[in-house]
This record gives sequence, structure tokens and C-alpha cells, in this order.
Amino acid sequence: MHAYVLYGQQDIRLEERAIPQPQAGQVLVRFGYGGICGSDMHYYFKGANGDFVVKHPFVLGHEVSGTVVETGPNVTRLKPGDLVAINPNLPCGACLQCRQGRENLCPNVRFWGSASTMPHTDGAYQEYVLAQERQCCVFPSGFDPGVAAMAEPLAIGLHSVNRAGPLMGKSVLVAGAGAIGSLILLVARAMGARSVAITDILDERLNRARQCGADLTINVSQDSPEAQALAKGDLLFDVTFEASGSLRALNTAILATVRGGTVVQVGFLPTGEVGVQVNKIMSKELTLVGSFRSGMAFDWAVDYLASGRIDVTPLITHQFGFDRVADAFAVAADGQQSAKVQLFFPTGASKQ
Amino acid sequence: MHAYVLYGQQDIRLEERAIPQPQAGQVLVRFGYGGICGSDMHYYFKGANGDFVVKHPFVLGHEVSGTVVETGPNVTRLKPGDLVAINPNLPCGACLQCRQGRENLCPNVRFWGSASTMPHTDGAYQEYVLAQERQCCVFPSGFDPGVAAMAEPLAIGLHSVNRAGPLMGKSVLVAGAGAIGSLILLVARAMGARSVAITDILDERLNRARQCGADLTINVSQDSPEAQALAKGDLLFDVTFEASGSLRALNTAILATVRGGTVVQVGFLPTGEVGVQVNKIMSKELTLVGSFRSGMAFDWAVDYLASGRIDVTPLITHQFGFDRVADAFAVAADGQQSAKVQLFFPTGASKQ
Amino acid sequence: MHAYVLYGQQDIRLEERAIPQPQAGQVLVRFGYGGICGSDMHYYFKGANGDFVVKHPFVLGHEVSGTVVETGPNVTRLKPGDLVAINPNLPCGACLQCRQGRENLCPNVRFWGSASTMPHTDGAYQEYVLAQERQCCVFPSGFDPGVAAMAEPLAIGLHSVNRAGPLMGKSVLVAGAGAIGSLILLVARAMGARSVAITDILDERLNRARQCGADLTINVSQDSPEAQALAKGDLLFDVTFEASGSLRALNTAILATVRGGTVVQVGFLPTGEVGVQVNKIMSKELTLVGSFRSGMAFDWAVDYLASGRIDVTPLITHQFGFDRVADAFAVAADGQQSAKVQLFFPTGASKQ
Amino acid sequence: MHAYVLYGQQDIRLEERAIPQPQAGQVLVRFGYGGICGSDMHYYFKGANGDFVVKHPFVLGHEVSGTVVETGPNVTRLKPGDLVAINPNLPCGACLQCRQGRENLCPNVRFWGSASTMPHTDGAYQEYVLAQERQCCVFPSGFDPGVAAMAEPLAIGLHSVNRAGPLMGKSVLVAGAGAIGSLILLVARAMGARSVAITDILDERLNRARQCGADLTINVSQDSPEAQALAKGDLLFDVTFEASGSLRALNTAILATVRGGTVVQVGFLPTGEVGVQVNKIMSKELTLVGSFRSGMAFDWAVDYLASGRIDVTPLITHQFGFDRVADAFAVAADGQQSAKVQLFFPTGASKQ
Repeated sequence: MHAYVLYGQQDIRLEERAIPQPQAGQVLVRFGYGGICGSDMHYYFKGANGDFVVKHPFVLGHEVSGTVVETGPNVTRLKPGDLVAINPNLPCGACLQCRQGRENLCPNVRFWGSASTMPHTDGAYQEYVLAQERQCCVFPSGFDPGVAAMAEPLAIGLHSVNRAGPLMGKSVLVAGAGAIGSLILLVARAMGARSVAITDILDERLNRARQCGADLTINVSQDSPEAQALAKGDLLFDVTFEASGSLRALNTAILATVRGGTVVQVGFLPTGEVGVQVNKIMSKELTLVGSFRSGMAFDWAVDYLASGRIDVTPLITHQFGFDRVADAFAVAADGQQSAKVQLFFPTGASKQ
Repeated sequence: MHAYVLYGQQDIRLEERAIPQPQAGQVLVRFGYGGICGSDMHYYFKGANGDFVVKHPFVLGHEVSGTVVETGPNVTRLKPGDLVAINPNLPCGACLQCRQGRENLCPNVRFWGSASTMPHTDGAYQEYVLAQERQCCVFPSGFDPGVAAMAEPLAIGLHSVNRAGPLMGKSVLVAGAGAIGSLILLVARAMGARSVAITDILDERLNRARQCGADLTINVSQDSPEAQALAKGDLLFDVTFEASGSLRALNTAILATVRGGTVVQVGFLPTGEVGVQVNKIMSKELTLVGSFRSGMAFDWAVDYLASGRIDVTPLITHQFGFDRVADAFAVAADGQQSAKVQLFFPTGASKQ
Repeated sequence: MHAYVLYGQQDIRLEERAIPQPQAGQVLVRFGYGGICGSDMHYYFKGANGDFVVKHPFVLGHEVSGTVVETGPNVTRLKPGDLVAINPNLPCGACLQCRQGRENLCPNVRFWGSASTMPHTDGAYQEYVLAQERQCCVFPSGFDPGVAAMAEPLAIGLHSVNRAGPLMGKSVLVAGAGAIGSLILLVARAMGARSVAITDILDERLNRARQCGADLTINVSQDSPEAQALAKGDLLFDVTFEASGSLRALNTAILATVRGGTVVQVGFLPTGEVGVQVNKIMSKELTLVGSFRSGMAFDWAVDYLASGRIDVTPLITHQFGFDRVADAFAVAADGQQSAKVQLFFPTGASKQ
Repeated sequence: MHAYVLYGQQDIRLEERAIPQPQAGQVLVRFGYGGICGSDMHYYFKGANGDFVVKHPFVLGHEVSGTVVETGPNVTRLKPGDLVAINPNLPCGACLQCRQGRENLCPNVRFWGSASTMPHTDGAYQEYVLAQERQCCVFPSGFDPGVAAMAEPLAIGLHSVNRAGPLMGKSVLVAGAGAIGSLILLVARAMGARSVAITDILDERLNRARQCGADLTINVSQDSPEAQALAKGDLLFDVTFEASGSLRALNTAILATVRGGTVVQVGFLPTGEVGVQVNKIMSKELTLVGSFRSGMAFDWAVDYLASGRIDVTPLITHQFGFDRVADAFAVAADGQQSAKVQLFFPTGASKQ
């Protein structure tokens, strides 16, 4: 079978590997669709994702759907033919964090397609992949496998909103209209926020956000009355999400949150000591909540996708065959063009 | 009667005023004891507390106990002779924040002894003061009026700990062993924290903290193994409190908090954009909680003092007659010597 | 002007009254639409609502919209012509419950159209009515005044769902497809419940519930597989709502809730000691949450109606002119025919 | 070695068994002290604990301390000589409840000394017992092994109080001054309740409760002013705990809880539909919280015992050698005489 292996910066190579055999509790899954995430782009373009440097070749891919083709012993819930999304998180189930119901914080977690452990943990960019049965959530027969592959990023959005607490009666601001920001927008609307505004510096992204139901879009690189009001702290929201990775956006979010309100930080901000209006956390009695990965929200994401209650299709802007993997990464890196770019093993044409 | 009026930097003047008459819902209180707070010192030594500049003469004093001497019409709960602590907060009771149960965030609040409004709101450094009945909480007859005057600062500590959520099974670190930090220590112990550690740069303060029940004290200006472990992130706590006003302490608190833990920010940090390790809020999924003033905790503070469940006496280090008000402020400013300094209208000798 | 005054059982009389003059902080509102609530029916058909007996003539009506026609002094937010919904709750703003953000539990509350106080508090079934400005929430110009009059019952639904905590990822069961149960269904869907099932004993109500988006409807008076599964505890939900006032429904809800789940009790159950499977609260570690009136949710209800995010129109089944007030009550009492029945001062024809 | 095996009603037999060998992850523990719990008494006197009937001989004992004598492979944290308390819960770590941080609700749990599974799960009434390393929490060297054996019942008390939410500023009532009620009293005090009252029908128990720090004790079988006030709903508390197993006590608790307050149900009430004033849950907007077993609180219990922050010694009223096991059960059944009765393998005399 084909596997796409990352050797270093902009160096993904096609290799032939033997199709593995599912062991007890495992299933063999034929790859359906796999999204390209921000962390994949860091590994691909920079050879490192923050502190996690690529030390040896490994396989990326953690936003994946596929079809079960074979089940190992003791597999009871899945059968060949099932369309599944695969949870890339493998928490230990025994540490304090796992026992507290916070498996996303498990210090022993293995995460597919990540250089955070040695040896690195292979991801799913291969024709066939072994998964634990417990990693797999089934979609109804006939469901779109591209949409199914959105379960993992949607889980990030769900977890972020969950961290913010209930949104009934609350106005929301999302900073950043990339894939994660747009998913937070979709989730905030689905969870009953009174209104959702979103900011970005690219009009193309804000146009997509309007398709996703944004009540207000603000291009913060332009000098509109809304952008001015936001910068001055005259436009206030009950809950704000920093999903852009921009320090300026975090400071705007702090300014734009009502007294007693909540700021959720999802984006990767610069590391080290960076300039934050932190005294306002106290003087406005804000709550600044970090949100890391997704925890239990993966299962919820599958439900909301399967029932159609959350419609992520406006965000799947491109699907490339693996023969065009370099093109796929290039398009994914261009936030103006793309929201979510997915890869598949081509038997037909790429959608662009 | 005597009133001590702040005219500007280090300029408090004795003035004679007429004793006022209680109106409907009001009581006349003879001053018992009044503590000197950090904000009082800012007004006294710098002529301003942060953004709030002294624009005209006014009376300081918001940590006050006294004895009811006369009641106005419609006063039902209080009678002459009652020892009371006076809540310096006068929230409006009608705004959104008040309706949400967060009166400490009321934008229309008037706060005794504060230049935050124009005209400034007089505080209690006067022989007799008018208070609303609803501001006054009664202590049992014979209770120590100096301890009663600790209700307001204790309320700050209670509110901070309340913002942190339940402490059952939790280890706690308090950064800063001044009056507020020490009160948080006392409250965290009373609310069942598994253990409480505290840091400071002055051994005298840490000695007092041990009297208050600290399980571990760390002088962060010295090169002890504990100080090193803390600086390296090897000493971890479930809940940390920043009560020192030091940016370095906030960054240490972020480092010293377990994944998924809570940091409470109570101290006044430098304003503007200052250097914070903010990405760790996300990568460790921390919750950074601001705590501002005290809200409903004033009533609780009176209860815990009256029942003796929280013993603040180790923190009342000095009591001066108003004839020595300049000395009182000088001692209050010297954190090595003093924790809480209180003033009274002298009929006997000052305690030092 | 006309006023419709309740004298006793099935005895509402038309009286002429002088149009009142708005005082400081008040507005005069011309009646738009007013719904008939369960409590109105108790007063009308039985002369009492639970313990509250009609002791003297008074005016019913607490689900009311109208148009501001005149403003008193110090009114700043409203102007003549504004379409408003009127919050029938007048909490005191000063008691412990109000200070804690739970104004729906205020012991000093006055509630429009209620015999719970002496003298009884008049409601809004009159051509013109005085309201405090703070009771009135404005709708956009041109909004449907019948829908606006749904703010109060929708607030009941919102408050109930708020009491249940966040619904992300949760399956929901609502027992009772009357007006309140159907509103809870609408709210639970809007707040992102994974799925919502609803029960009743009348197919007509379940048909309306399907129009409101129910994923599953169960007629518990019939012997369907779903009804059997529910009765046996084989059909489980994360959160259940008792909105039928039936003791049997409460016991079914307790049985149908997963271990660790939540049961919300909104309906008026029989008073006194009645048969409840209460040991299961402990053995399944359930949380049984009472929900009383609506608190802050009134403002939210107006927002969700005004933005169209919650569409209550399927529930407004009948609108009668006050000349047919007896017919209106008769239809309202027939749950098979009607969901919400509203009254208006006729200048045109009744809608049935 | 000796093992005490329950064959049926009042039929515990001494048997000789081979000392087992610890496998990977296991330790061999020499029995220290083991308490007799209410469920043990049900098995012993009635041959059944609720629905769980003794079908074949098995060993009771789930409140146990002991000393590690041998460690199996892969044991890293424990060593021979360690004094440990053994958590009798073995949750699966993989089900939804475990993943949600609620291991006490695990449907796959095995619980020591319980007939809830087939075959029944042996408990610890044997000279040596195998435990998983993860079940064992270490006490400091020299700690009292009888107090160590209180970890499990204290965990029940901690979990109950945890279910009630933070107690800052709250007045508490505990119904029932048996072992669990008294432990809740101790925990509520340690977690900062403003005041704790407790009821019972036996003065001996109330005397012990006063030793444990109760602020108010009420004998509800007597006609005191306090008992009358309680029965009439004139004595109100923020949080009430039903720990007596009496239906009357539950109804009193509902009556005695303030509007908006919390009732925690810990005791085993009669099963089936029993008479509860359930409408008050709605009309007072109460929250009735079930509390089942202990979850994560076991580890906390060990900490609070080891640090001396919670002193349970007044509750250990009797310690018998296993040669007097029948006497021990007889005394345990007499709530007037005893609070907690413990067993040990005699090398010295029994304490009574």
C-alpha cells in the first residue's frame, strides 16, 4: 500500500508498505479523506511544530475518515463497511487527568501524526491504517466521507465553546476566521449564542464566515467604524474567542469583553513573555480560559455532523489527491484561498 | 466632630464638621477602627490610585467598624449600641451586573473613600459617619472592634477564593504574603485546601504566614531548593493566587500551576501590555481568573470573624490614634514591619 | 378604557376605567396581545391557583405585548410607538435572592395578574396599562405583536433549560407537549441538544411538537415499542424535563435519565407527599433541579424572538378578541385543540 | 492464612486459605484494620444488601488499611512496609462515565466485598489480600492504621460535600448522626461551612456530633423548640444532607432548605414510589442532588487523614479482634453504642 512519509521541510515521500493486520481490539481502516491542519503545515513547511522537531521520518494526518475493511479479535461495535472518523488521541485512561474527565490533558497521550513523542507517532496519510476500535465513531451509511473527516477539527471548536460555559443569552466575538475560528462560529451559533461577530484581516475569510452565519464581520485591517469601535473598547461582547494566533487579537479580545465576561484562548500565541493587558483581567474580573485539543468532544462532533445539526460544508474548500500533496499544502497555507484542504487517495479527480 | 481630610500627597488635615443627622434608612455610626489599605496608601503617598487622581479634598477610609449611636426612620434591623462593620460598596441594585448577582462589578457603584467618581465619595475617617442600614453587619456584643474592622479586607480574600471554585483536595500557592495574600492563605485553609504554600521576598512576612498556618513558605529572593524548584516549574499546585502585584510572580504562578489548573489574579499588576507567558494558558489549558473587590462576601466575612472560624488577629500588627495618622501611613508602607495598620480616635494609647 | 376583571369562577366582567397617567419611570402601554397561561386558567375555572385564592376582583394577564403611547418623567430608553413585551415580575432588587442574581426567587416580588399578594396585583387585560420602564423590552419596529407576547412563556422555557446546564452533546427528553413543554423543546434545540424527544398522551400535541423539531415523539398512553421501552427504563436520556404536571411522568423521567444525569422539574406536581422513586436519585446519582418562573431569561427571550432564532409561531394556535374571552378560556383549556391562546382588543376579526 | 467468609445470615466462618502471590501491578497487603459498614451489616443480618442477595460464600470488607508485605512486577510506587488504605472500587477506566471523570458511576465497576456481581467480589476480611497498586494510597510511617482504615467512609463524606458545591458562607443541616452523617459534619466544617447543625433521634449520637464540632444538635424525636421549628419550616439552611435513610428526614430536609438551596441525598431511602413533598423542589427552586459512593475522593480522604486536617478519631468507638466478629457486628448494629466498629487480626486485646 502507499504511505506518504514526511522526511523534513517540504519533503513528503511516497513509500510502499505492507498492509498491516488488525490485532485484538483493532480495526483496519481504508483511508477516506484527511484534512490538513495548522500543525501539519508547521511540520511540513518548517520541519517543526513549536517545540516538536521532526527527528526522523514519520507519517502526518490526524483529521481522518475511512472505511473499516477488517476487524481484529474482540471487536464488537464495528464491522467491515462502516464509515468511521478516527479520534487521533490515545489517552492512557489511568492518570489523574484521565480520571478527572480531562483526557485532553493526559500527559501520557499519544497523538497521531505528531513529533511530540519519541519515536514520533505515525498519522493516517496511508492507504490503510490500524486503529483501536475505541478511536472510531461510526457515521450513517452513505454519509459524505469528506464531511466525516471534519470530526476532529469540529471537536476542537466544540471543546472551545464547552470551555466557555453555556452561551444562552450571550453575545460572542470570534477573533480569526480561519478553519478553527469558523468552526467556533458554527458551534457558537448551534449552541444558542444570542449573536456571533467575527474578525479577520482577509475579506475572503469574512465572506465565508457570513455563509457560516456570522451576524457581524469586521475586517480589523481596515478603518471601518466597527473596527474603530472594537479597537477603542466601545464594542463589547459577553464571550470572546482568540482563534487567530495574533497577540494583538488577544489584547483586542480582552478589551472587547464585558466586565465579568470570558475570553477563550484557542490559537497558538507566541511563546515566552509577550505583551498582554493582563491587569484588565483583574480590574474587569474577566476569566481567561485556555482550550487545548478536544477531549470528549470528538464523539459529540460525530453526532452533530451525522445529524446535520452543524453544517461544515462551506469550510471544505479543496480536496486533492495525494499525487498533488505539495499543491495541497501550498493551497492550505494560503488562507485567502482556502479554509480546510483535504487529501484523498485518488481514484477520481481532485475537487478545487 | 473631627474628620481627617486628604488634600493631596502626604497631606491629611484635621477638620471640624457638624455631626450629621440620619435620614430614612440610615444610621449614625461612631467610628471604631479603620484599616489602611493599599489604595489608601496610593492616594496618600502619590495623590492617585492608578487612574483615579485626587481632584479635590475628600475623606479616606473603607475598612471600618463602629458603634451605632442613632437610627433614622425605617431602620428595622439595627439599634443604638450595635457594633457593626460597614460595607463600603454601594451598588445600584438595578444594572445588569447587580441583577446577575455580581454587585462588585456594578458600573454605578459608589465606593467609600474613593476618587473613582466625581465628586469623590467620602470614606469613614471621621468621628461619626452616616451609613445605609443595608451597609451595616452586626457583630455580637463585646466583640473586638479592631477585628470587626477586618471584615472588608477579609471579604476580598473570601471573594478571591470563591472565584477559584471549591478547594477540596486542592493544593494552593499564594504569591505575596502581604495583608491580602495572608488573608487568602487564612481563607484557603478555612475552605479546606489540602495544603497552602506562600511566597514573598521578606522573611518577616513569611514568619507571619507560618503563624497563619502556611504549610510551606518560600522566600523567592533567596536561592533555596524550593525557590529553584518553583522557578523551574518543578513545584506544582492545583490553584495559585497572584496577590503580590508583581509581574514576575504572575509568570511564576502560571508556571507553577498544574495542567488544567486555575490561577487567580487579585493583585494590581502594571497596566498596559506587559510580558506574560500567555501561550501556556492555552497549552496547559489553565483558567486565569480575575478577582475584583468583594461582592456578597462582605456578609460572609462578618460571619467568619464573629464565629471565630477565621482568626485574623496575627495580621493586625499596629493600631494608631488619628493624632499619629502620618506615622500610621509610614508604618503601613513598610511591609517588613506591618501587615495591617488600623486607626482609631484616641481616648487611650496607641498599640504598636 | 375597557378592563376585563375576574370576579370569581368563570366570571370575568368588562369594566370601564380611566386611562392612568405615567409617573416617574413609568410608561403607558396600549395592550397588544396577551396569552392565557395555566395559572390564568386555574384562576378562571377554579377561582384559585394552588394556594392563591381569589379574595377580591382583580385583572389577569401576564404574557403581554403592547405599544408605548406615553412616557413619564425620567424615562430614557423608551419612546411612544415602541413595541414592547412587559416582564410581569417586579422583584425588590434588595433582598438576598436579588443580590445573588436569582430575582425569580425574590420573596418580595410582585407578579402581575396574581392573587399571591394582598391586595392582588392587577395584570394587563386592559386597554391601557402602566408599566415600569425597566419591565419593558423593545422589539424592532414592525415585529409581530402576537409573537412579542410570547416573551414571558419563552422565558420560562429558557430558564428551565438554563437550570439544566449546557446541553452540548446531550440527549434530551421532555415530558409533556403543552405550551411549556413545547417551548422547552424549541429552546433545547436552539441551545444545541444532540437530540430532543417529547412525550404526551395526545397525538395532536405530538404533531405540533414534530413541527417544532422533535426528533422523536412518544404517545405514552399507547402501547408502542418506544412507550414500552420508556416505561421499562430501556430508553435513556442525559437530561429530562418534567413539564406535564403528572407524577407518573416525573417517575418516568427519573427512570429515563442516565446515571449522573439531570432531571428538571418545571410542571406543577400535586402538592403534599406523593409517590416518587426517590431512592434512584441517590443510586443513579441524579440531580433533580427545580425551575421556578424565569428570572433574567425574560430579556433573553425578547432577543431570541426578535432575531428569529427561536420561532414560536407554531404554538400560537388561537387569537380571540376580548369580546369572546369565555370562548378563549374554553379553547385554552382544551389541550387537544390549542397550544397558546391569545387575547386582543378587537378592531378586527379573531383568528382561530 | 485466615479468611472470614460470609455464608449467609449471621454465618461468618473462619477458613484457611493459601497466601496469594502478587502478579504484575499487584501488591500483597497484610490486613491492618477493617471497618463495618451499613452494607456489611445488611449482608450479615439479612443475607442481602437491597437487591444484591448473597448467592454463594464470599468475603466482606471494603474499609481497609494494611501493610504492604510484597510487591509484584511493575510496581513502582509502593514498597514493603508501606501503610496503605485500599480503595475498594475498581472502575473500568474506559466507559463513558470513567471518561467523564465520574468513576463512581462506572457500570463495569467491581467493588470489594459486594454481591452486586456474579461471582461476588471478595473483600478484605482476610489476613493477607492482593490489591492493585493503583488501589493503594500510602500513609506516613507511624500513622495509626485504624484511622487509615477510615479513608473509605471519609471519602463518602467528602464526595457528598463535593456534590453540594462550595460551602463558603453557607449554613448546613445534616439529617442523621450515624457514621456517614458525622463524617459529613466533619467534612462540612473542614470545607468552611458557616455553621453545621445535625439531627438524630438518639442523644448518644448527638453527643458525639458535638464532639465533632456541630454548632447545633436537634433530637427530632423530642418536642424541643428547635425540633418544632424544624418541623414547621421555620429553621432554614442553605444546604441540607439526608444521611439517615429516613423518608421523614428527607421531607424535613426539603422543608428546611432555603429557596434556591441544595438538598443532598446520601442515605439509602426506601425503594419504590414513596411519599415525597416533590412539588416544593419546583416551587422553592431547590436542587436535589444524589450522592453515590465516592469517586476520586478516596485519594483526598487519605490526604486529609494523613495531614490531620480532618480528625475522625471520635468516630472509631470500637475495635474487635476477628475472633469476636459476631460481637463486632452486634455492636455495630447498635447505633446508640457505636459509631464506627473496626475489626483486626488479634495479636493483642480488643478495644471497646
